[in-house]
Amino acid sequence: MKKIDVTEAIFAIKKEKNLSWESIAKATGMTDVWITSACLGMNSCSEDVADKLVAFLGLSAEAKSALMEYPTKTWDHVIPQDPLIYRLYEVVGVYGPTLKEVIQEKFGDGIMSAIDFSMTVDKEENPKGDRVILTLNGKFLPYKSW
Amino acid sequence: MKKIDVTEAIFAIKKEKNLSWESIAKATGMTDVWITSACLGMNSCSEDVADKLVAFLGLSAEAKSALMEYPTKTWDHVIPQDPLIYRLYEVVGVYGPTLKEVIQEKFGDGIMSAIDFSMTVDKEENPKGDRVILTLNGKFLPYKSW
Amino acid sequence: MKKIDVTEAIFAIKKEKNLSWESIAKATGMTDVWITSACLGMNSCSEDVADKLVAFLGLSAEAKSALMEYPTKTWDHVIPQDPLIYRLYEVVGVYGPTLKEVIQEKFGDGIMSAIDFSMTVDKEENPKGDRVILTLNGKFLPYKSW
Amino acid sequence: MKKIDVTEAIFAIKKEKNLSWESIAKATGMTDVWITSACLGMNSCSEDVADKLVAFLGLSAEAKSALMEYPTKTWDHVIPQDPLIYRLYEVVGVYGPTLKEVIQEKFGDGIMSAIDFSMTVDKEENPKGDRVILTLNGKFLPYKSW
Amino acid sequence: MKKIDVTEAIFAIKKEKNLSWESIAKATGMTDVWITSACLGMNSCSEDVADKLVAFLGLSAEAKSALMEYPTKTWDHVIPQDPLIYRLYEVVGVYGPTLKEVIQEKFGDGIMSAIDFSMTVDKEENPKGDRVILTLNGKFLPYKSW
Amino acid sequence: MKKIDVTEAIFAIKKEKNLSWESIAKATGMTDVWITSACLGMNSCSEDVADKLVAFLGLSAEAKSALMEYPTKTWDHVIPQDPLIYRLYEVVGVYGPTLKEVIQEKFGDGIMSAIDFSMTVDKEENPKGDRVILTLNGKFLPYKSW
Amino acid sequence: MKKIDVTEAIFAIKKEKNLSWESIAKATGMTDVWITSACLGMNSCSEDVADKLVAFLGLSAEAKSALMEYPTKTWDHVIPQDPLIYRLYEVVGVYGPTLKEVIQEKFGDGIMSAIDFSMTVDKEENPKGDRVILTLNGKFLPYKSW
Amino acid sequence: MKKIDVTEAIFAIKKEKNLSWESIAKATGMTDVWITSACLGMNSCSEDVADKLVAFLGLSAEAKSALMEYPTKTWDHVIPQDPLIYRLYEVVGVYGPTLKEVIQEKFGDGIMSAIDFSMTVDKEENPKGDRVILTLNGKFLPYKSW
Amino acid sequence: MKKIDVTEAIFAIKKEKNLSWESIAKATGMTDVWITSACLGMNSCSEDVADKLVAFLGLSAEAKSALMEYPTKTWDHVIPQDPLIYRLYEVVGVYGPTLKEVIQEKFGDGIMSAIDFSMTVDKEENPKGDRVILTLNGKFLPYKSW
Amino acid sequence: MKKIDVTEAIFAIKKEKNLSWESIAKATGMTDVWITSACLGMNSCSEDVADKLVAFLGLSAEAKSALMEYPTKTWDHVIPQDPLIYRLYEVVGVYGPTLKEVIQEKFGDGIMSAIDFSMTVDKEENPKGDRVILTLNGKFLPYKSW
Repeated sequence: MKKIDVTEAIFAIKKEKNLSWESIAKATGMTDVWITSACLGMNSCSEDVADKLVAFLGLSAEAKSALMEYPTKTWDHVIPQDPLIYRLYEVVGVYGPTLKEVIQEKFGDGIMSAIDFSMTVDKEENPKGDRVILTLNGKFLPYKSW
Repeated sequence: MKKIDVTEAIFAIKKEKNLSWESIAKATGMTDVWITSACLGMNSCSEDVADKLVAFLGLSAEAKSALMEYPTKTWDHVIPQDPLIYRLYEVVGVYGPTLKEVIQEKFGDGIMSAIDFSMTVDKEENPKGDRVILTLNGKFLPYKSW
Repeated sequence: MKKIDVTEAIFAIKKEKNLSWESIAKATGMTDVWITSACLGMNSCSEDVADKLVAFLGLSAEAKSALMEYPTKTWDHVIPQDPLIYRLYEVVGVYGPTLKEVIQEKFGDGIMSAIDFSMTVDKEENPKGDRVILTLNGKFLPYKSW
Repeated sequence: MKKIDVTEAIFAIKKEKNLSWESIAKATGMTDVWITSACLGMNSCSEDVADKLVAFLGLSAEAKSALMEYPTKTWDHVIPQDPLIYRLYEVVGVYGPTLKEVIQEKFGDGIMSAIDFSMTVDKEENPKGDRVILTLNGKFLPYKSW
Repeated sequence: MKKIDVTEAIFAIKKEKNLSWESIAKATGMTDVWITSACLGMNSCSEDVADKLVAFLGLSAEAKSALMEYPTKTWDHVIPQDPLIYRLYEVVGVYGPTLKEVIQEKFGDGIMSAIDFSMTVDKEENPKGDRVILTLNGKFLPYKSW
Repeated sequence: MKKIDVTEAIFAIKKEKNLSWESIAKATGMTDVWITSACLGMNSCSEDVADKLVAFLGLSAEAKSALMEYPTKTWDHVIPQDPLIYRLYEVVGVYGPTLKEVIQEKFGDGIMSAIDFSMTVDKEENPKGDRVILTLNGKFLPYKSW
Repeated sequence: MKKIDVTEAIFAIKKEKNLSWESIAKATGMTDVWITSACLGMNSCSEDVADKLVAFLGLSAEAKSALMEYPTKTWDHVIPQDPLIYRLYEVVGVYGPTLKEVIQEKFGDGIMSAIDFSMTVDKEENPKGDRVILTLNGKFLPYKSW
Repeated sequence: MKKIDVTEAIFAIKKEKNLSWESIAKATGMTDVWITSACLGMNSCSEDVADKLVAFLGLSAEAKSALMEYPTKTWDHVIPQDPLIYRLYEVVGVYGPTLKEVIQEKFGDGIMSAIDFSMTVDKEENPKGDRVILTLNGKFLPYKSW
Repeated sequence: MKKIDVTEAIFAIKKEKNLSWESIAKATGMTDVWITSACLGMNSCSEDVADKLVAFLGLSAEAKSALMEYPTKTWDHVIPQDPLIYRLYEVVGVYGPTLKEVIQEKFGDGIMSAIDFSMTVDKEENPKGDRVILTLNGKFLPYKSW
Repeated sequence: MKKIDVTEAIFAIKKEKNLSWESIAKATGMTDVWITSACLGMNSCSEDVADKLVAFLGLSAEAKSALMEYPTKTWDHVIPQDPLIYRLYEVVGVYGPTLKEVIQEKFGDGIMSAIDFSMTVDKEENPKGDRVILTLNGKFLPYKSW
């Protein structure tokens, strides 16, 4: 059983039982963003989280093992096509050099880690149209010289 | 005078006068992220902001006009190469489908606008290494059917 | 049952019963362009539309569920190859900067939404050869500054 | 003098005299979309239109000749990047196969010409946000068999 | 039954019965180039031609229907690799701008249609080596201004 | 003086003297297609043709030498963009496998040479719209086995 | 049975019977390079060679027919990745313009045919390390003018 | 003075003095292929060869230094376009896996070096058309295991 | 049985028996890096190593044969996507020209072989975070002139 | 003065004074790899290092400032072409998944940092040919879950 098979199994159960990612997050004690990424095969679960996920969804023992495997993280479209994902790519294209200027002014020469990293999605209600609040939180890593 | 020329002029003055993006932001009443993007030619200034920017930096009248022009937003590398910007691209690749799941669960079928959109960069001090907090705030746009 | 399976089922039924997109549109109360895009898996149906579509075509309950799922919108050829679709791509290449000039002169700095958006196809009879009238209708979204 | 030089000259004059594409369209008797495309070097002017354009803008005789030359129509980014133009590309990607279905159902096997073709941009005022109405009008060309 | 299945069926029958494209052309009253393209799924047959083809080759009724469907015309290699096809691509690369000069000098600003179009292949016997004569015949389409 | 400089010089003289490619062809005793390709730097002239071309256009001695040099044949867009040239590319994409079938049925396993090759453009007057007749004539080269 | 199936059958038999390409070459009277390319589906066999190959390897009658078919020559990686093949690509990249200079100095304006072409691989024993001797032999084709 | 400048200087002198690569090869004691590649900036000369080249062509002392620099070997077109060079690329595409089979059968698991490597071009006169004989000679490098 | 099948079999056994690459390395007398690459199908085993691997893991005789086959080395993503592998690609991009300067200063004009090559991974414990020590060891190959 | 200008100045001085990267490394107290990367514009110098570099090479005050700027790290060829750099790319392609297996077995789920990173080049003398020893040393970064 590979991660992709677990992902398909989770989607089927989630649909059948009419579950939300939020409920899966609560059952596992993780955030909705992180547990979704693990269910999509893009992060590995600790044994504790895998146990909870398997118990909550009624997955097999083999699924637990696959959930704990370290993923190979790849994606299909070098330039994303789905509009929701493309808009994020566009933000990176349009604001990338701006973020480099502002982050490096505040922190020095280095980068924001995408590994020692977390992210949340929040909903801000607004009469003119609700707003998506996406917060990325990454450790600043200064370049080493030697 | 084109936007690219204004950008070069601003970088020269900024270096000579040892200014920060933060001080330029304060002088114009905008955030550091937005005013930096405008100085890099990726957003157009209102006349009021252009006036303040020209006054603060000592730019020419022609520069004011270029700052107010509507930009054509393009970038050089379809896959970014600078590590700071690449890490953001990687986040979009690794977490794009996750964000689609989570955002659409919370909001319905639609996207986060990259136009009715703002973004901030904050510094979270942390003894294990300071953290970059990047917050994207975009209006949710539901798909229309007809 | 995935969206792609529903699409194949719809094509089979449509051929067998010799139905037109126009008749499917009428049965569902939507336009031919939109209902075709939903049948091709590029838009999600509301429950009401899904019910009508399922009833009219004699689809399964599982198909209804798939029709209501939020689609991931992707396409195969970054540069389209089929001549009908390529000509539209060519129009975007040849006239893209022109449309940017004209739209932004009329509306200010911003874009035409592809989300809060509709489109129709009409036939204009003409002795020198009938003409295709394609009308795109998108909300103007002004760039936000912050 | 090449077309690109004429384009730069026109932009400079347009800015200096604070002209709109609409006024240039009126002076030449063409639509704003078409005359803008000609000024951007993407269409060739008839002698009559070139004369009017040269007269209205105060261009040189050499410019007239360049305006009448047949253009080589090329574009820089195979996938457009500026958000206004990208949205049109996205519409082609998302709705291309839908348009093929609907147009060919109405007209038979063939395409919409991008040569025997015209296009207009209109503004529809709307309290929820004005709307861009983009109308493409192309001759239907049936495939020939032989 | 899809066009690709009909193509495979035709190749199998053609091999089994040792038929030539020329004989298939004669039986259907079309040219060898056109009927071959239809058999390869790149053009749609009229009912009359489909009937003759089905009769001559002994195809199924379902094949007739597939032969009459409007094809989606795509190809695998953006730059062709098979030497016979690459040489044609090379001719377009090397002589494309030349053909633009010569055609537009003879006809004015416009293009040769690839839709209102036919093509033949002839053999010219020659003691130094026979020659392939490829003749493309396309309607000239002048650019419209508006 | 490089080939590209000669090309620019020829275009300038051709425009100034209002010459056609047809007249240049006659003056050099070559066809319009070939002489145009040589003027565009895509073929090398024999000394005799170079002499006639230099004499007819009033080019320099250095230009003669450049015209006789063996060209490096390259093109800018792997997929052509100008509509006139793209249509030819589309023909290769749509009909490439068809031509392979038909040519190899008539000639055996091999290709049509693009080197031992000539091409002509003719105009066929037609009340429904004149037609471009493009004739490619290439030596058939059978594959060798060894 | 397609060429790819014959290739798989040949590899299976070759492994089972522990045959070398050299022995297959001897049995068919062709060189090892050519017969290997034919077994890999990149060249078509004459009936005589196909008969010998079928007899020597114990292939089916259907395989004989597939071996005689004219191949469509394509390859998977536009830039080869396997180190042995990449080194050849690198030689073309590094020495391509050099070969053009030297070949055209010796032969005039033209190319080396890849169709009227043969190639051999030899082993030169050498105490410092054996050497691969790869010899390409192609007919020189002069460019035609017309 | 960079390698590219030396290359241009050499081409100018070679044309002015009507020299051949063969004569340059003789004057330097190297083969025509190698010395041409060094003149094109794709190999570095030993001091001895640089001295002979400078003396024979009348180059500057600065050119000698540039000729001795270690080159960065790059090329413009990932898929070559000039027909002479493309045919070599096609040979690598069509025969690459064949050469891997034959070389590894003769030598074991490893590659032919493109560094400990030489190449010659010879002319074989032939009444049916002269032939280009291209000989590559590279050290076999076995893969190491560890 | 192909190399890919052996790889899948090895992963299944390794998981079932809870083996490490380190233990597989010890059982075969090779390093962990090399034996892992052989298990992933990127190197060929000598008969001795294949015997040990088959014995230790309980593989079939057919697997032994596949392990000894010479691999075709290819990879899926021209630009790697998994973060661990991408960082190595980034190092090549950022430091490639630096390594060329430093290696060629120490060794002369030439390259580091990737064939006569070995590599090790070590762990350096460090209170601030353990460090990965990756050591590449390749024979220097000087360019040959001829 | 931009980083690229400082790089050119350093190369000119280095050549004129016949300096090695090793001597520049000693004068600045950094390793040869790191100081070379800084001179090539791929790392930023601390003020102390910039002072020493400026003093040792006799650079301008403006150069010091440019050396201290934070670089934008980009490279020209997505797949490197120079053989020395390509071999490193090939190692990443061939051994990337192997390194992922081995590193993650030793360290857990995470990556080797390319930011908190150093690298050295050593020469191992060897009678069969000297060997390049390239050592990469990067902090292990475990993936965070949240």
